[in-house]
Order: sequence, then structure tokens, then C-alpha cells
Amino acid sequence: MTKCFVAELVAGSTIDEVFLLAKRNLAHKKDGNPFLTVTLADRSGQVNGVVWDQVERIAAVAAEGDFVHVRAQVGEYRGTLQLVVKDMARVPEEQVDAADFLAATVRDVGKMFERLKELTGRMQNPHLKALFDLFWADEAFVAAYTRAPAAKLMHHAYIGGLLEHTLSMAVLAEMIAGHYSGVDRDLLLAGVILHDVGKIRELEYTRRIDYTDEGRLLSHIVIGLSMLDEKLKQVPGFPQVQAHLLKHMIISHHGAREFGSPEPPKTIEAILLNYIDEMDSRVNSVREYVAKDTSEGSWTPYHRLLERHFYKGPAESDN
Amino acid sequence: MTKCFVAELVAGSTIDEVFLLAKRNLAHKKDGNPFLTVTLADRSGQVNGVVWDQVERIAAVAAEGDFVHVRAQVGEYRGTLQLVVKDMARVPEEQVDAADFLAATVRDVGKMFERLKELTGRMQNPHLKALFDLFWADEAFVAAYTRAPAAKLMHHAYIGGLLEHTLSMAVLAEMIAGHYSGVDRDLLLAGVILHDVGKIRELEYTRRIDYTDEGRLLSHIVIGLSMLDEKLKQVPGFPQVQAHLLKHMIISHHGAREFGSPEPPKTIEAILLNYIDEMDSRVNSVREYVAKDTSEGSWTPYHRLLERHFYKGPAESDN
Amino acid sequence: MTKCFVAELVAGSTIDEVFLLAKRNLAHKKDGNPFLTVTLADRSGQVNGVVWDQVERIAAVAAEGDFVHVRAQVGEYRGTLQLVVKDMARVPEEQVDAADFLAATVRDVGKMFERLKELTGRMQNPHLKALFDLFWADEAFVAAYTRAPAAKLMHHAYIGGLLEHTLSMAVLAEMIAGHYSGVDRDLLLAGVILHDVGKIRELEYTRRIDYTDEGRLLSHIVIGLSMLDEKLKQVPGFPQVQAHLLKHMIISHHGAREFGSPEPPKTIEAILLNYIDEMDSRVNSVREYVAKDTSEGSWTPYHRLLERHFYKGPAESDN
Amino acid sequence: MTKCFVAELVAGSTIDEVFLLAKRNLAHKKDGNPFLTVTLADRSGQVNGVVWDQVERIAAVAAEGDFVHVRAQVGEYRGTLQLVVKDMARVPEEQVDAADFLAATVRDVGKMFERLKELTGRMQNPHLKALFDLFWADEAFVAAYTRAPAAKLMHHAYIGGLLEHTLSMAVLAEMIAGHYSGVDRDLLLAGVILHDVGKIRELEYTRRIDYTDEGRLLSHIVIGLSMLDEKLKQVPGFPQVQAHLLKHMIISHHGAREFGSPEPPKTIEAILLNYIDEMDSRVNSVREYVAKDTSEGSWTPYHRLLERHFYKGPAESDN
Amino acid sequence: MTKCFVAELVAGSTIDEVFLLAKRNLAHKKDGNPFLTVTLADRSGQVNGVVWDQVERIAAVAAEGDFVHVRAQVGEYRGTLQLVVKDMARVPEEQVDAADFLAATVRDVGKMFERLKELTGRMQNPHLKALFDLFWADEAFVAAYTRAPAAKLMHHAYIGGLLEHTLSMAVLAEMIAGHYSGVDRDLLLAGVILHDVGKIRELEYTRRIDYTDEGRLLSHIVIGLSMLDEKLKQVPGFPQVQAHLLKHMIISHHGAREFGSPEPPKTIEAILLNYIDEMDSRVNSVREYVAKDTSEGSWTPYHRLLERHFYKGPAESDN
Amino acid sequence: MTKCFVAELVAGSTIDEVFLLAKRNLAHKKDGNPFLTVTLADRSGQVNGVVWDQVERIAAVAAEGDFVHVRAQVGEYRGTLQLVVKDMARVPEEQVDAADFLAATVRDVGKMFERLKELTGRMQNPHLKALFDLFWADEAFVAAYTRAPAAKLMHHAYIGGLLEHTLSMAVLAEMIAGHYSGVDRDLLLAGVILHDVGKIRELEYTRRIDYTDEGRLLSHIVIGLSMLDEKLKQVPGFPQVQAHLLKHMIISHHGAREFGSPEPPKTIEAILLNYIDEMDSRVNSVREYVAKDTSEGSWTPYHRLLERHFYKGPAESDN
Repeated sequence: MTKCFVAELVAGSTIDEVFLLAKRNLAHKKDGNPFLTVTLADRSGQVNGVVWDQVERIAAVAAEGDFVHVRAQVGEYRGTLQLVVKDMARVPEEQVDAADFLAATVRDVGKMFERLKELTGRMQNPHLKALFDLFWADEAFVAAYTRAPAAKLMHHAYIGGLLEHTLSMAVLAEMIAGHYSGVDRDLLLAGVILHDVGKIRELEYTRRIDYTDEGRLLSHIVIGLSMLDEKLKQVPGFPQVQAHLLKHMIISHHGAREFGSPEPPKTIEAILLNYIDEMDSRVNSVREYVAKDTSEGSWTPYHRLLERHFYKGPAESDN
Repeated sequence: MTKCFVAELVAGSTIDEVFLLAKRNLAHKKDGNPFLTVTLADRSGQVNGVVWDQVERIAAVAAEGDFVHVRAQVGEYRGTLQLVVKDMARVPEEQVDAADFLAATVRDVGKMFERLKELTGRMQNPHLKALFDLFWADEAFVAAYTRAPAAKLMHHAYIGGLLEHTLSMAVLAEMIAGHYSGVDRDLLLAGVILHDVGKIRELEYTRRIDYTDEGRLLSHIVIGLSMLDEKLKQVPGFPQVQAHLLKHMIISHHGAREFGSPEPPKTIEAILLNYIDEMDSRVNSVREYVAKDTSEGSWTPYHRLLERHFYKGPAESDN
Repeated sequence: MTKCFVAELVAGSTIDEVFLLAKRNLAHKKDGNPFLTVTLADRSGQVNGVVWDQVERIAAVAAEGDFVHVRAQVGEYRGTLQLVVKDMARVPEEQVDAADFLAATVRDVGKMFERLKELTGRMQNPHLKALFDLFWADEAFVAAYTRAPAAKLMHHAYIGGLLEHTLSMAVLAEMIAGHYSGVDRDLLLAGVILHDVGKIRELEYTRRIDYTDEGRLLSHIVIGLSMLDEKLKQVPGFPQVQAHLLKHMIISHHGAREFGSPEPPKTIEAILLNYIDEMDSRVNSVREYVAKDTSEGSWTPYHRLLERHFYKGPAESDN
Repeated sequence: MTKCFVAELVAGSTIDEVFLLAKRNLAHKKDGNPFLTVTLADRSGQVNGVVWDQVERIAAVAAEGDFVHVRAQVGEYRGTLQLVVKDMARVPEEQVDAADFLAATVRDVGKMFERLKELTGRMQNPHLKALFDLFWADEAFVAAYTRAPAAKLMHHAYIGGLLEHTLSMAVLAEMIAGHYSGVDRDLLLAGVILHDVGKIRELEYTRRIDYTDEGRLLSHIVIGLSMLDEKLKQVPGFPQVQAHLLKHMIISHHGAREFGSPEPPKTIEAILLNYIDEMDSRVNSVREYVAKDTSEGSWTPYHRLLERHFYKGPAESDN
Repeated sequence: MTKCFVAELVAGSTIDEVFLLAKRNLAHKKDGNPFLTVTLADRSGQVNGVVWDQVERIAAVAAEGDFVHVRAQVGEYRGTLQLVVKDMARVPEEQVDAADFLAATVRDVGKMFERLKELTGRMQNPHLKALFDLFWADEAFVAAYTRAPAAKLMHHAYIGGLLEHTLSMAVLAEMIAGHYSGVDRDLLLAGVILHDVGKIRELEYTRRIDYTDEGRLLSHIVIGLSMLDEKLKQVPGFPQVQAHLLKHMIISHHGAREFGSPEPPKTIEAILLNYIDEMDSRVNSVREYVAKDTSEGSWTPYHRLLERHFYKGPAESDN
Repeated sequence: MTKCFVAELVAGSTIDEVFLLAKRNLAHKKDGNPFLTVTLADRSGQVNGVVWDQVERIAAVAAEGDFVHVRAQVGEYRGTLQLVVKDMARVPEEQVDAADFLAATVRDVGKMFERLKELTGRMQNPHLKALFDLFWADEAFVAAYTRAPAAKLMHHAYIGGLLEHTLSMAVLAEMIAGHYSGVDRDLLLAGVILHDVGKIRELEYTRRIDYTDEGRLLSHIVIGLSMLDEKLKQVPGFPQVQAHLLKHMIISHHGAREFGSPEPPKTIEAILLNYIDEMDSRVNSVREYVAKDTSEGSWTPYHRLLERHFYKGPAESDN
């Protein structure tokens, strides 16, 4: 039986399903009797619920962050869906399909990673090739690299998003390196593949996507640099100039100090990496924003960060 | 006999060559005798000269902006080349090869334009195709479009630079439109080809590249919009929505209000146009800046506008 | 019988009145029974309402955007007025007085327009005079020009606001052109009258004031330029230099690129236009903000856009 | 009997206590019956309450801003505490301990002020010494100076906060003046002690902390300058150069024009004052923000003004 | 005999004239012999000179800042005028017409001041009227007020410039106060007349225009406030609210903190003052910039502060 | 015999001294004869010279960057000192006292370093103590750490400047950590001592102070992080949380992203480090700027970066 996701709930139905218990709060009614409000979540969104009966018993079964099996009636409260929860029970993590709770790329992760390895396999520069042989041989790294999201909110914010974003950029980098003469294709490609590796530790992405302590204290640029530093020491004879140029690509990929890069791009390859990253992130971000918008009319709601409405296409009446 | 360009002058030699008389100034020595200082230019640069003898006669032969035939000795004054001019005579414009006085693209203009026409010829959208048929049939437009520079100083600042920049962007646009699903390839391509057409009237580029009055008062974005407006009215049945979207690409192609776009990009095609334009301009601009730098060491001088030094490659001693 | 406006509703009364059905939403109570929440609006504001009985029947009578005849009890819900709607019926647009639903200038539109025509009638410059003869002879243009608001929210945001704002500026322009020597009075006046004509198409203002697709994609500066371009072509012998200067006034009237002007003002007339526009908009905007504020004390609430409180005068206890 | 503060209320209990009646609103239920909602406050926070019975009588006993004696049941409404008020009576201000209603420094005001006087007593500069003798002899000034808060919200926002902030800065100034050679210790100290005196009139701090009309119209920098000006005229023979330098410290202490200083710091003493002020304000502000945060985990919520989360220490599970 | 100004010097002539000795420097030639370079100035500009003979004697006659009688030959050195000074003698200040050395308004100072007094004489508000009676009765103040420039460089940078600028603004204020209903004409006028009084002490303007120490340390906004403060104390019964509002106009007249105003304008009168000041300053500044430009063509050189070229009118060939 | 420094040269004297040959250029006179211009430097400044005789021989003796023994006559050319060089010979580096060519701290480096070691020796935290034991035992590190300047231009731009700046900050940190409760003194001190270690590799400081390739590509923040990373791996059992907090101090010490910090300070210790660094750098920078200014009057010339004049004290005539 397929899972009924939060986004699919219909007022008037009853459900019998597993969710993440995101928040809970025990309160009291005017008559002094307790009631429990809960927030239940899965990868499709979250919904509030309330427990009116057997409140103390149900409140004790699970803590915030646990998975819970919920039986409830789906109602509405002032125009918003609300569950009236009849019963709730804790479910061990190993019985839960994590994929139900974190959105994931719709692409084939294995194939994407193979494609990326193929690109590094064709590198002419023996030092860079050796560097990637080391990275790809590090199983813990590969496991995290192919699972991490590319961001918490802004773009590719789902399991596998880092790989999807990186591969899309790598394909663009190949085209663009072929378009302009004098571009060091291997250096550009290496920069693309490594620019966001720090996201692996900047973010946690087991039950939900959020920043780690290390991420908030150091940023993915600085973490990624340490990760690269460590691997570089293991490649015998890696030329120092090349090491500086590769590190420069990572630390400059946000394009300007005000966006978190300690130095702006100072080589053609670093300049290209910055534009390819911005273009791919922006395209993904805007397409997701438009795709998620269910409002009528030709325009999305105002996008606070990008400070504009986006055009979704002519309204029906305009055709 | 090939022309001896300003950039090729050698101290100690004598020259007998045609230049543009960019500036001249009549002054007097302490002993009361007059002397004439001149600035002579061609596409490779400019050099100062001085006339010590027959000053009045020589001063009368030509005005600023004229072409002049110059006989002179090449000397140095405190480490800079300086011509000691023996004689000077005005040369009619029709006897001069304009190509010597304005730098031009090194690419084949005819082939570049054929390539561009081929791209518009493959458009699926009949309205856009019809629009470009109109543009390409307008001989005065094509003459200017294939001759204009893309800027006064910043990038592709030479005859044919607009076409070179546009074609480079068009090729990138084809690749990128193929890379992302859901992109309107014809609309993107149309935006690319028309985004800078206003440069044709924003700049003058007969003897030197400079802004026109119209250019300074209106900007190429606004001029280009008028040019498109005029042609759109001649395409029967051009859909209004499409006209708005195409105009939007032109007016938003600088990416943000602070860079002169009255509106920021609000469609995927406009977003892509902005990134492709920035990337192609920046790559050309930095490569020209590095190419022109003759200083020793690994770094260019500080670039005031981009606020950084650029890396030119390891110094010899580093290898 | 005069209409009872939203702003005049009193808790405890019953009403029997026509409103615009701005929003509606069908929801369900905990017991599974449906209820309908609605937002009703007229030019004075909006109020929420709820339908508890005969919900399905009433929900079917009208769609968002329709005018509806409403019978209701006026109550309060946690300190805010709320209608308990007994019945609702759709009203055809032609039976409704549009003036009840869009705020309008309190000035006499006819007289304001006569005053403006008188000002253009006294122009000395035959070309500019001819241009305005054309504009005033265009009935569709005049109908829109005398009806359009000057903005969606910020200032003169009501029917006739564009004309009111323009006339106020024109009177100031007359004074100021007389105050400074060397100002081209006719050019300044022409710029004032045309600076915001693009608002006619940037905004829609039939049932509510909002942006059009064209407005969001192109901005009123660009639209106004096209409108002027079209008329200029119909004036025989309009001097090109003058055309550029007039267009320059329109595109530079926001004063700086970051505010949407592709070029900053480069003539005295364009500089004056920018200041007159800013001053008149700001004065109107602040006066409306102060006038609408019903709070006690000497200060308005914090104005988020202008980032300050405004002083309303000494509190009573201070006198 | 000690007061029960808002922050100590427990759901399920009954209270019999004095609060400030911050807001009140008379509304009507669907059945037409009135009810009264109130906001009650003391220095620890505020809580909402509702009166269901004897509404008219209770509504008449007090106005906003009065102190009221309240008998109520502490309940919860959707997870937030809410009082069900049984009865309420006005309490004359003189029967109330003001300290219960405005948070105050936890330090000993008398000792802090003695410490400050000791510092000015050790000044070598006779003019500055004479100036402070005047200030300390002005009883109304001293009363306000030792009672005023240092800000409405940001830092040291409690009774005595100005003195606490000033003394902390004065101690730092002593250390730093001893650390760097060539610093005029007396001038620096004088600047520190006077930099925020304008707060005395910029803010009101009798029942709550808020801006005065004078404060909003003139700012504490300008008010403080007038206060200093007045006292300076009473010190015979105060050297004009010194007066300018001391005034300069007051007007430049925000460090830059964009933060409200008409001139930036142009002497070493003014530079030091700016850093000492920023450091002491920031440390206090962040420590208060962290101390007030009751959320779990290693991080505070996002701080909108300072645009970051602050680290509170490792989560328990990290240890 | 009329003075020969620096701007009127012609190469090849001899002069016998009084200048300000702005700079001088004693140097040595390769042969060890001394020579003296000098900079000579009057209100029309400055010119360099050199003394080859009797160097020691001539060097001793005057110090920088003295007026000197100069006999010299006007020559050119690399295209710039240069005096070969034959002799030089110090001239006592009282024998010099100061008007030759500081540019001054071309308007009649007496008439301008009468016009201003007439405006304050018509004030309805007795307190403001009394305030100006005090100001106008202060002879030292009036002497400085009618002599001060309005700025060092930017606009009205000449003797009498403050009065000229203030009167121009006052006339505009009258018009504008009549145009908008609800504007306090007397308050606006008072703000206009007093907004820049601090310039009297911010600048020195005896032999040249420069900042005073007080000016650099405190700014004219702060100085002007002190001047007003002092006078306000002498007006019996001046209402405190009115004093705050008037002071507010002075401190907010730059419109925003980043331009040196501790608070932004918060009343209609303060808003109007800011616009009138900006408009009058900008118009004067641009007109002076255009008037001083002697280059050919339609455009001024690039204005670094205002970041644009200004249009001077069509080039002759365009007509 | 003590060296005669550039700053001590007197016109009319002859010299016989060693300088750094900073630049040289071979040019030709009008008569075709060659001459050589040179720039000679030591730690006190630089001076231009010219060789008129035996030009070819002298030009061949040394390259730019060599030390040269120079015999010359000190003359002046248009008011600036200029050497007429009679002879020049290359001097091997080992015969030169480097201290003559790079400015150095006036403090005792050995004592400063002992003081710093004493501070780390008193650390309570065993992990941080162990970390510094490792750093201090690394002789190459200590040699560089005690020799490096703190900047190229801005502050402490001399040999030993990094140590001087760091020690000054460490002493301040001790005071401030004692002043505020709850500050981790050892963590703050560790951050202070390590915040700029990357300068050791960001700059080169053998013959002159300039950026290295690594410095321009990576910045001292990123380099310092790598250096710390390497040492941290060698401290057994260094707690990960502490490592993150210490790294955070290094990367956030510029206070904001726009100044090159990938993250802003998020702990009290990081906030304090940022203020202590800014204060110490600014004080040193302004004091050096004032000390170097030899102009008359009360004010330094305009400081372009800090955008103001600094006050040097009253002019003599004011006393």
C-alpha cells in the first residue's frame, strides 16, 4: 500500500499513516483539561493536529524527532487542514522508508555518478586525475557526496541535489570549455566537481535538511577547502601552483566577498565556475519556485529574496 | 608597403607614415619662439610628438580629427617615446584605409554573419522567423550591425565586436537551451541577437569609438527597444504576449536596475540571456586585459573597475 | 439610499449592501459540516465574513471578482469586525456604481484636464504644441489618461490620481521654470505631462488597481517611451534633437539607475522634472499616510518603506 | 508577599496581583454579548486576558496605562497562557513599586555612580574636572542620568542601563588609555561619560521605555550636544579647542554618517570611544539575546538585525 | 586701471599685477644654483611661475598667504602658461581689493538681504518673527550671513553664495507653501533661512574658501543648531514644541543619515526643505559646471561626483 | 659609518651609498645619445636618479632588485630631489644589512615573543596549551612569525609588525577577558595569537613587502586556516567542538562577509576578537598616518580609504 503524503490529505477522510513528529505542545483548555497540539511532517510538507482525548497517554509515546504511526480524522480549522488525532504510536527508524521523509532528486543517482566519473576519467592532467581517483576511492566520501542536498532552501534542496547540481554544471563546463579557447578544461571541471563538497558537512540531511554546528561556524567554502587540503597531501607530486589554483576556485566560487568568498575570481576558470554555478542554481531555484506555485494568474507571488514576481505564462483568458 | 603602427615604433628610427591627428596645441618656449605639440594615433595606440621648426606653417596644414602624413624622428623623453616631427601634410579621408585607424575583429565578418543567419533560419516560431527576415532584409541595418563595436572600452571594443559578441552568445545559447528542458530556444536566441542592437546608434565608430548624443541621452537599451518596436509593427500578426516577452529580454538584460535595466529578468529565457551576456563580456574583457598587459610577473596591474589583479600564469622563476 | 461602506460598519447592526467578493474559501468544521469564509471589499476597505447556514447554496452563487448583494449581521471576532452572512446573491456589473469600488480623486477631473490643456495651449514651441494637439485629439488616450491612478499603493493610488499628480507637478513646473533663468519652460512642461503616461498601460484599474502583464514585463518608463515614440512619428518635422531631449526626460525621471531609470538626468529640465516628481509624490504619500492613521499620540506607526515614523502634531496633553 | 511576575505564571493556578493595563478592547460575541480582552504587563513580560462576566462594569474601572489589581484564573489558549479575569480594580500609582514594572539593572546604582565620580575626580585636566563638578552638582541631571536606560530595545534596555553601560565603558577606557601611548585619558573619559547623555531626554522611562517627541525629532546625539553646550558655557575659561574636541567625540561616536553621526571620528580619542561603545553595546546585546533564548539546541533563533544565529554552546548530546 | 586676472593672461605678454602667493618652493638646478617656483592665484584661478634670477632676495620678500606685486613675462611650458617672474614685492592686505581674490555673487547683496527681511517681516507666527528680529539685530551675525559662501566647492561657492542660495530657496518655499494646503509657511520659511547658518563658522572665507577646525570637527548642521539654540533662549516664551520642530528642520535637511543628517525629515515642512535645498543646490552646481566648461562638443567632461556627463546643447554641426 | 638614508638626502651634497635598484629604464636624448633613469630605494623611501655618462657600462652592472653601490650628486628637478649618478656597482646581498631596506618594528622582537609565550604558558585549557607548545616548537614557523609584517600598507607594515600587532591585541584581550564575565580567556587569547598567522605566507618580506601568489589567490584567512588545521591534527585528543570554535575565530575575524570573512562572528569571543583587531589596526594606522604627515596646519591630507582628514592638534597660531 502506498503512503498517503501530507500534500495529498483530503478534508473529511480518515488516515492511518506514519509521519515525523516535528513539534508537539501540551496545553490546557479553559476547563483545565489538557490537550496536545502536534505538527506532523513528511517530505511533501507538514500539517497541524490536535489530540483531545487520552492526552496524557498519547503525549508520552514519542518525543519530537521520532517517527509516529498516527490514526486521525482530517478536518479543517479556519480554512486550513487540521488532523484530529485519535491515536499515535512510536515507530522505530529502521521500519521507516527515509525516502518518504526527505525529498530526493528524481534522477538516477547511480547513473549521474557514473557520468561524473566518466568525465574525470577523461582528464589529461595526471595530477588532477590522481586526485579524483583518491576521492572516488573514498567510500564514505562518495556515499555522502551522492546523497547530500545542494542547499537547505534555495536550490536543489533535496537528497541527491548536490550531485544533480554538480553534474549539470559539469556538462555545461564541458561545453563552455570547448567554446572558449585557452580555457584549462581539466582545471575548470575539477573546480566544478569540488566547489560544493563542503556541503557534505555543512548540512545534515538524515531526517530533515538543516545546518550543522560546523556548517554555521565555518561555511561550506572553508570546510570544502579542508577536505581538499587533506586529499591533496595524499597525491604525490601534486604541483603547488596547481593546488593554489584549484583551491582558489573553491574559495572564489561565490564571486565576491559580500557573498562569502574570501577572494573574488582571478582566473578565467574561476570566473567561468562562478557564472556556471550562479546560472545553474538560479535556473533550478526559479523553476522550483514556479513549479510549486499553485496560485492562478500569470505571475508567482513576490519572491522576497530575488525581489520580483516571476512570469508563469499567459493566463488562460489571454490565449 | 605595410603601415608602421604606433605600437611598433622604435626609438632611433625615422618614420614616414599616416596617422590621425588626435590633438594639437601651439605653445611658446621661454625665448618666445613657438612650438607645436601633437598627439598622433592609429588603431594600435597613440604617441606624442613635437614640432620645433617651421611651426606656424605646419600648424596650419590640418585640424584635429584630420588624417596627416608625418615625417619624423622617433626619440624618447623621460622614458616615453616622442616623435620629433620634421613635416606634416593633410591626407584626404578617401586615401586612407579606415581599418588602420580603428581596431577590428580578427574574425571573418561575412562568415560570422552567415552563421548567425543560419541560426535564425532554423527557428520554428514563424513570427520570430519573420521578424528576423525583416531585420536581415534591411541593408542599412545589416551594414551597421556587422560593423558596430560592442562597447567603447570594456569588451569587444572594436569594429565587428558587436557581431562577434552576439555570435559567441548565440552559440552558447544554443548549447544551454539544449541543456535545460523547457527553455524556449527561439525566444532565447532572438533575445541574444537583439539584446545589444541599440549599440548601433548608441556609439559612433567611424574614426574612433565614442558615444553619440542619442546614446548618452537614451542608452542602448532604450534605443534598441525603439528599433525592435518599429520592426515588430511590420510583422503581420505578431502576438502581443510574445512581443512583450521579447522586449522584456532586451530591457532586462543587464540583470538589475542598478545596472540600467528598468526591470530585472522575470522569465527563464531572460535570466539565461543575462548570464550568457555577463559571462561572454567578462571573459572577453579579462582576456583582452591580460593580453594587453606587458608587465613582468604573474599578475596584471590592479583593475580599477573589477577591483582586483588577474593571474597571468606562473612567473618564469616559478617553473 | 446611500451605500454603507466597509469603513462605516458598526458592530451590532445588520446590513443589506453590495460588495466586491474579493476572496472566498469553503472549509469544514470539526463536526464535518461545511462553512464558507469570504472577504468583501469596496473602495473604503475590506472585511471578513463567514457563512454558517445554507453554505453550499450560497457558495455557488458567485465567483471571486463578482459583485454580490449581501445580507449580514455585523459582529466582532477577537476585536475585529466580522460579518455573519445570512444570504448572498450575484449582482451584474452594470447595476453597480464603479465609483463605490475604486477610490477616486476628490477633485473635478474635467476641470483638472481643462487646466492642463490650457497650459499646453500656451506653449511657444510649435513642435511640442503639435505633439500635444495630437495627444489631446486621441480620445482613447484622453479617456485613460484622465482615469488612471498614479500608482498601485505609494501615492495618488486612486482613479484620477495620474491626472491630479500631473497637474500638481505642472503648476509647480510653471513656477520653477519662471524662477530659474535659462530653463526651457515648454520642454519641462512636456516632460512633466508625459513622464508617467506609461502608467495607463502599466496598471489596470477597472475593479481594483493592479499591475498588468505588460507593466510587470516592461515598466511604465519603457511603455511611456513607446507611446511617445508612436505620436512623435506623426508630428511632421519634429526635430530629432528635441525628440531625444524629451525622451530623455521620460527615461531619466526616476533620477538614478537603481530606481529604474536607464540613464540619470543630464539636462537642467530633466533634473527639475526628477525633483518635482519626487517632491509631489512624497508629499502626497506622506499626507495620505498621516490622514489614514487613526492611532492616538503624536506619531504614525513606523513606515517600513520610508523607514521612519512621521510626526502628526503634538498630542492633546502637550498643548 | 513577593509579587508574582508574568514570566512566573503557571497554567491552572489563580492569581491576585497588580499589573500595568497595557491594552484593552471591548468586543462582542456572536450572540451579541460583550467581552473584554486585555493585555497585562510588568517588567518580566506581558500576557493576554479575557473578561467574560460583568464586562461593562470591569471595562469602566481603568484606562490604558493605569495600574490594575487583577483576580484571575491562569489558563491556556492554543498553547499560550491566557488569563480568565474575574475582577479588576484601578490602583493609584503611588501604591505601586515602579521597580516591578520596568526592568532594572541588577547592579548597585549608588556604587556605580560613586565609581564614576571617582574616575572624574582623578582627572588632571582642570577644565574637564570643573565640567564634571558642574554636572554632578546638578541634582536633576544626576537623578535622570542614574535612572535612564541606554536604549529602548537593543542593549542595556533597562532602568540604570545608561549608567551601567557608561561605567563599563569608562573602565575599559581607563585600561585602553593606559595601553596606548599618546592618548588623552581625560578627554577619552569625558567623551565616554557624556557620549549618551542625550538618552536622558531621547527616551521616557517612567512606566515603559519609549521615545519622546524630542528624541524622535532630534536624536540623542543632538540633544546631548545641547546639554553639553549649556554646561560648557558655565565653566569659566573652558578652552574653545577643547570644547570642539569634546563635542566632536559626542557627535562622532556612532562611527559613520550612515549610523547617525554628522561627522566620523577624526581624533584617536574619538576613534577609541567609537570602538569601546560598539564593543560594550554588542557584548551586552548578544549576552542578553542568548540569555533570554529558551529554545533547545546549540543556536539562538536568527537575529534579524545582526543577520545571524548565535552559538550558545554545544548541545547536550554533543558533550 | 582694471586688474588683469589669471584667467585672462596671454602668452607673450608682460604683466605687472598683484596676486595671492598661494605656494612657493625653493629648489636647486643641476649646476647647484637655486631657483624659486611659485603658485600665484586670484579669484579667476591660479598659475605657476618660476624665478631664475635674484632668487634668494625675491624668496625672502613674502610668505605663503601674502599678497605680492609681481612683474613677469607670460610664457608657456609644455602647453601650459608659466610666468617667468622678474620681481616680486609684498603688498599689505589693506591695499588690496579682496573682491579680486575671492569670487563673489553677481547679485546685489543688500537687495537680497532686504528681500529676505521682507519675507520674515510678513510672518504670522509671533515667536518665529521675534526669533528673526533677534537674528537680524545681531550685526556680527548679519555681516557673516551676508558674506559667507554656501560651500567650498560644490555649489554657490563664492562670497555671498549662502545668501543667494538661501534667498532662492525662500522664494521657492513661498511658492510651494502656497501650492500645498496644510503647510506651515512660517515654519518652512524659518527652516529655509536657518538651514545653513552653520556654514558661517564651518567655513573660512577671507582669502580663500576652506574648512575651519570647528567645521571639520562638528559640521555645519551641528554648529547651526548651537547658533539657533543660543538665540532661542533669548526669545521669551518660545514654545518648546515649535523649537523642536524648527531644530528638526535644520538637523534633517540633508534628507538621510548617510548624508550627515542625524534624523531623516519627519514632517511635511522638513521634507519640503530637503527637496528645495537639493533642487536649488543641484541646479546651481550643474549650471556653474556647464558655464565653466570651455571644451568643444555637446557634452561636459565626466562629473566624478555626479557620475555623468552633462548635455550642453547641440554641437554647431548638429544645427 | 652610519648609512645615509633616502629621507636624509640634502640637495647640493654628494653621496657614496648602497641602495636597492627598484627600477631602471634606458632612454635616448634628442641627439640620439642614451641616458639611464633609475629609482633607488631603502626603508626610508625612494628617489629618482639619472645617469648621463658611461651609460651603457653602468646600465649593465645590475638588474632591478639588485643592491647597488652608488656615487652621485644630489640635485633637484622642479622641486624634487634627483640624483645625478656618477657610478654604480652591484653589491652581493650578503654584504648588505637587510634592516636598512625594510622598515622594522622599533620594539625588541625577542622580548615581545617572550611576553607572548608567557601568556600562552598561563593557559588553563590543556588542549590549547598543547597546540601552542607545538607552534612554538616549530622553529621555521617562529622565525617567520616573529619577522612578518602585519600588512603591506595599512597598519604595522614593517618587519616584526605581525608580532607587535598580535602582542598588543593579546594584552588588550587579557584586560577585556577580565572585564566581562563569562568570556573564555584561553579561547580568546588563542584566537588573537592565530588570527593573522596566514600573513606569514600571504606576504613576502625579504627585500620589500608584497603579496605572494598564494596570498592573492587564497587570502591570509584561508592560508591561516590551513596552517591551524595541520597543527590541530598533531594534538592528540583535541576536542572537535573546540577546533570548530577556534577556526571560527580565524575565519570570522574581519567581522563581515564584505570584508573577507566567510562567516560573521557568532560567539562572544569571536566578536571580541573582531573589535580588538579593528581597534588596534585603526589606532596604529592613524597614528602612522599622522606621524608621517609633514604638512603644516591642524589637519592631515584627505585619507582616501578612511574618507576623512585627521586632526593633528591645534596649529601654532591657535595656541
